[in-house]
Amino acid sequence: MSDDQILSQINSSEQLKKLTLPQLDKLAAEIREMIIETVSNNGGHLAPSLGTVDLTLALYSVFNPAKDKIIWDVGHQAYAHKILTGRRDVFHTLRTKGGITGFPKREESSCDAFGVGHASTSISAALGMAVARDLRNEDHNVIAIIGDGAMTGGESFEGLNSAGDSGRNLIVIVNDNEMSIDKNVGALSEYLSQIKVHPQYSKTMRDVEELLKSIPHIGGQVYKTVEVIKNGVSAALTPGAFFEEIGFNYYGPLDGHNIQMMQQVFRQIKEEEGPILVHLRTTKGKGFQPAENKPSTFHGIGRFAADTGLIEKDPDAPSSYTEVFGNTLVQLAKNNEDITAITAAMPAGTGLKKFALEIPDRFFDVGIAEEHAVTLAAGMAAAGLHPVVAIYSTFAQRAYDQLIHDVCLQKLPVTLCLDRGGLVGADGPTHHGVFDYSYTRHIPGMVVMSPKDENELRHMLHTAIKLNGPASIRYPRGAGLGVELEDEIHSLEVGKAELLSEDGNDVAVLAIGSMVKNSSEAMNLLAESGIKGMMVNMRFVKPLDGEMIAKAASSCHYIVTVEENVLEGGFGSAVLEHINDNGIDAKVLRIGLPDSFVEQGSTSQLYEICGLLPEQIAARIKGFLEGQTGDNNG
Amino acid sequence: MSDDQILSQINSSEQLKKLTLPQLDKLAAEIREMIIETVSNNGGHLAPSLGTVDLTLALYSVFNPAKDKIIWDVGHQAYAHKILTGRRDVFHTLRTKGGITGFPKREESSCDAFGVGHASTSISAALGMAVARDLRNEDHNVIAIIGDGAMTGGESFEGLNSAGDSGRNLIVIVNDNEMSIDKNVGALSEYLSQIKVHPQYSKTMRDVEELLKSIPHIGGQVYKTVEVIKNGVSAALTPGAFFEEIGFNYYGPLDGHNIQMMQQVFRQIKEEEGPILVHLRTTKGKGFQPAENKPSTFHGIGRFAADTGLIEKDPDAPSSYTEVFGNTLVQLAKNNEDITAITAAMPAGTGLKKFALEIPDRFFDVGIAEEHAVTLAAGMAAAGLHPVVAIYSTFAQRAYDQLIHDVCLQKLPVTLCLDRGGLVGADGPTHHGVFDYSYTRHIPGMVVMSPKDENELRHMLHTAIKLNGPASIRYPRGAGLGVELEDEIHSLEVGKAELLSEDGNDVAVLAIGSMVKNSSEAMNLLAESGIKGMMVNMRFVKPLDGEMIAKAASSCHYIVTVEENVLEGGFGSAVLEHINDNGIDAKVLRIGLPDSFVEQGSTSQLYEICGLLPEQIAARIKGFLEGQTGDNNG
Repeated sequence: MSDDQILSQINSSEQLKKLTLPQLDKLAAEIREMIIETVSNNGGHLAPSLGTVDLTLALYSVFNPAKDKIIWDVGHQAYAHKILTGRRDVFHTLRTKGGITGFPKREESSCDAFGVGHASTSISAALGMAVARDLRNEDHNVIAIIGDGAMTGGESFEGLNSAGDSGRNLIVIVNDNEMSIDKNVGALSEYLSQIKVHPQYSKTMRDVEELLKSIPHIGGQVYKTVEVIKNGVSAALTPGAFFEEIGFNYYGPLDGHNIQMMQQVFRQIKEEEGPILVHLRTTKGKGFQPAENKPSTFHGIGRFAADTGLIEKDPDAPSSYTEVFGNTLVQLAKNNEDITAITAAMPAGTGLKKFALEIPDRFFDVGIAEEHAVTLAAGMAAAGLHPVVAIYSTFAQRAYDQLIHDVCLQKLPVTLCLDRGGLVGADGPTHHGVFDYSYTRHIPGMVVMSPKDENELRHMLHTAIKLNGPASIRYPRGAGLGVELEDEIHSLEVGKAELLSEDGNDVAVLAIGSMVKNSSEAMNLLAESGIKGMMVNMRFVKPLDGEMIAKAASSCHYIVTVEENVLEGGFGSAVLEHINDNGIDAKVLRIGLPDSFVEQGSTSQLYEICGLLPEQIAARIKGFLEGQTGDNNG
Repeated sequence: MSDDQILSQINSSEQLKKLTLPQLDKLAAEIREMIIETVSNNGGHLAPSLGTVDLTLALYSVFNPAKDKIIWDVGHQAYAHKILTGRRDVFHTLRTKGGITGFPKREESSCDAFGVGHASTSISAALGMAVARDLRNEDHNVIAIIGDGAMTGGESFEGLNSAGDSGRNLIVIVNDNEMSIDKNVGALSEYLSQIKVHPQYSKTMRDVEELLKSIPHIGGQVYKTVEVIKNGVSAALTPGAFFEEIGFNYYGPLDGHNIQMMQQVFRQIKEEEGPILVHLRTTKGKGFQPAENKPSTFHGIGRFAADTGLIEKDPDAPSSYTEVFGNTLVQLAKNNEDITAITAAMPAGTGLKKFALEIPDRFFDVGIAEEHAVTLAAGMAAAGLHPVVAIYSTFAQRAYDQLIHDVCLQKLPVTLCLDRGGLVGADGPTHHGVFDYSYTRHIPGMVVMSPKDENELRHMLHTAIKLNGPASIRYPRGAGLGVELEDEIHSLEVGKAELLSEDGNDVAVLAIGSMVKNSSEAMNLLAESGIKGMMVNMRFVKPLDGEMIAKAASSCHYIVTVEENVLEGGFGSAVLEHINDNGIDAKVLRIGLPDSFVEQGSTSQLYEICGLLPEQIAARIKGFLEGQTGDNNG
């Protein structure tokens, strides 16, 4: 760190107000350097955060994040915000256990006005804060910063509609980089990109006024017409006429890397009344050539070389579940013309990129719009297709009602592939997919499954597609187990578990999904101390394999359920219900995630916190057999 | 029915194509008469369905609902559709047990292209069907008919964004009556209402063209400017420019009661390519003066006098839960300036009308936008207010993710009041609120409660508002129990149940919410045959009263849980989990709703189907004590 570094001297964002433009430009470069260095080590959301460095500096040299309420939508673009609001010296702990989080979080800083992670919430939250300010006669600005990708989410529209109508003082900054995570899609995106640049608009308007002035002697209907033209021209040529029409004062589009221009606009709107929308054009990955060239690759990324951008990949790492899913779906779809694939802005993240390339006419990226994705699938299914919707478990929460009302109530053949099921690691509590067994299994008609490995995932996909009804398949983030992928893909019997081993009668372990591996290892550990029993891969959370449960109870009496889901209403809860309702005599220990939000960390760190490492599972089973209660406080 | 009635001769919508305009007008009147007669007897959605009779006739005299895919958003406006597509002779069974349903339903008719009930799904589903048609090389139209109220739902915007971008042949008809259920709100609503009438537009455009032609000798920049004006004027003066901009060909606004004009437009667009949006202006309640005067009152209505519109009300009926909620909230808010009230288009339905009148600055109707409603509340709460969001249980499913991600993850003091919890009666499976115990209790930090009567509801509301965190209160549709409302409102101890009676040790009944009454009556019946025990009002699904459960187990050993929620992951499931995890020795019978969608009928009919009448509960408890298993197949 050189002595003349500016960043090291910035201890409050208020200091930014005193910096000259060249100083701000230098500071921007220093912040970018810090972001690149940290993310190259810890992984993280590089391209989005590089794109907003200049915006953040311009914004915080005019507004005050300690007083004004500033809400970063999604929040993966807020690294500069973190660095400038008291977290510079701990920035190297980004996304690590006990370190600072990858998203704004109220507990972390009073400058984080609202916790974020999922898209499209910022305008709604900002309006709530504007209401609170007005009711309490407070005096500060409320600002939502939202990407054009997050703008496609329906909640953004609901928020705009409500905020525009409210007339309250509130600023929405649209950070338009023509990307969500992958290339942005949808008509709105096109609308934004067609908005002409501001200076041109001003010049044209002057010309129009000259022209109108030059027409002599107008009266009557013609006069009215000219008035209409004038207003009409004004409305049509004003970039962002749509936003004006729903109640916003529109500024833009502006260059989101020109700090001076942004400062001028921000100073002006700071004093203005009513809802304001500022439209900025930014470049995702700005200032780091590899990220500018491949913004999608550098959106959320693991470790890479800070100088070259070369991504460190373990050549021996097994294929990810995501990859296997994507490849398998292409294989199945080539033999079944009814299969379509739907993603909500995640063609790469969900493994559907290959499908998009090879079968483009049956591939649908709807943008960040999970509700629409699921109802779109229901519509396709009602008309004879079999859509496969791939969404991260945590984002599919957005489509819970559509799953009930559009898919299950109509018994439609829609397959929901829930990627990133379980603990996702460094992205933390906003992104863990730990509720899906609970929120899917209570819906009538759902078939809920989770594979023990990437090979079984393929058979489950085949099973789901052969079903004439709704099903979900949940699988974890990251690498598979490296098992061999069988050539032939076949259907599994619905509601039938797989007995993996039966070596004794001490205990029956019923595990599901990712926990089959950990539980099997636990059983191996227990075997060393002479504890032997049944090891079962349950495969289906719903319908449950009642015969297997009965066999487990009668053979072993002691049953342990293991899952990577909250215990409340989850898989173990389903087993308990079955045992109770069928009058089965058994003692049950349920192992799973606690009734609290789990923080960030590596997956193995989080497993340890939650007691899900094989040795921990083994110890808890041992305690259970020794007569301790089934209490989950592991 | 007179001999010259046209309606009695219509056995297929194809016959409509041969009718003259006067015949269609007469038929419209006959259909209205049938709707008024049936709804006055059975209750139903009168005003919406009266408003679309002319539209339905115009549409079905051009398109073919047996071949074209026609999706009625929400579907409460589709009575004419039902009458004209094979259900005339059973229309009198509308909304009754075993009769035809109040919403389009695929199982009921092949002309019901998509099952509906919740708002804002139609455009997404229509796009799915258009995709299926194109992939399968079929040839038919796909039409979504959506009210301006449902247009404010974010999913509609997601659908429009995606459909406009797709360029596929698809027609969206906006049925603009400036109402959702109550008066419509939001900027979009204003936008729609400002769109000028079509003929004026045509005339203005002609004038503009004349004017432009009259300007001689233009060149260079001025020429370009005029081109810009021309395009600009066209865009700005075209009504519905926004829809044009996102890819739709816009027609309108048209008089939605002028059958001839609509026929002309429909014939024209039938042959047109690409996404089309037709904007119709209709009058809710059209043709029935009492409903035209009070469209909100006649939106969804019980029995009334078909001649006068006088609503039959039982003068002795107790206040509804909704009313008590609304009055109590006003009372509490007058003493607590932090309280705000939020509704999603249901100020009357949720009882917040009084709040809106008496404390308008803290009342927020956001339109049909449940996601926004909950995040808006989170924003308010993060800024120091205590918002109370009142939404029907079934519609709150839309905000499940926001409840997790925006409210609970941030531990924010938001009170979610879930009206219409449990079986709602005639509206059927799309509207039953039977999942909320399951979908709320697995979220960390939620306090989940349900009152035994309307008096307890008041105390729960007080309790929730005093909490510094998220809570839900679920209560049923319709009349309370008629109990006295205590003058003083107080907080209940969180997580503490109420022991209602303790007369013996045979069985402990742990009931929640609406089922406290039925269970207490069941216990009274059992007492007659000598079975006596504990009767407990559990009050809290989360946190559970562990002490009370321990006492119930040690005193009685036999525990019965009773709830009006699906058993999967619900209240009884929570009790089971607690008993198991704490090593409590007890036998448990769980009584609740089945793992299937419950049809329509009166509440008591549905209770009977589900085994929830007091005598049924008594019989099941008796069987349980006699050693039958806890199986729920009552």
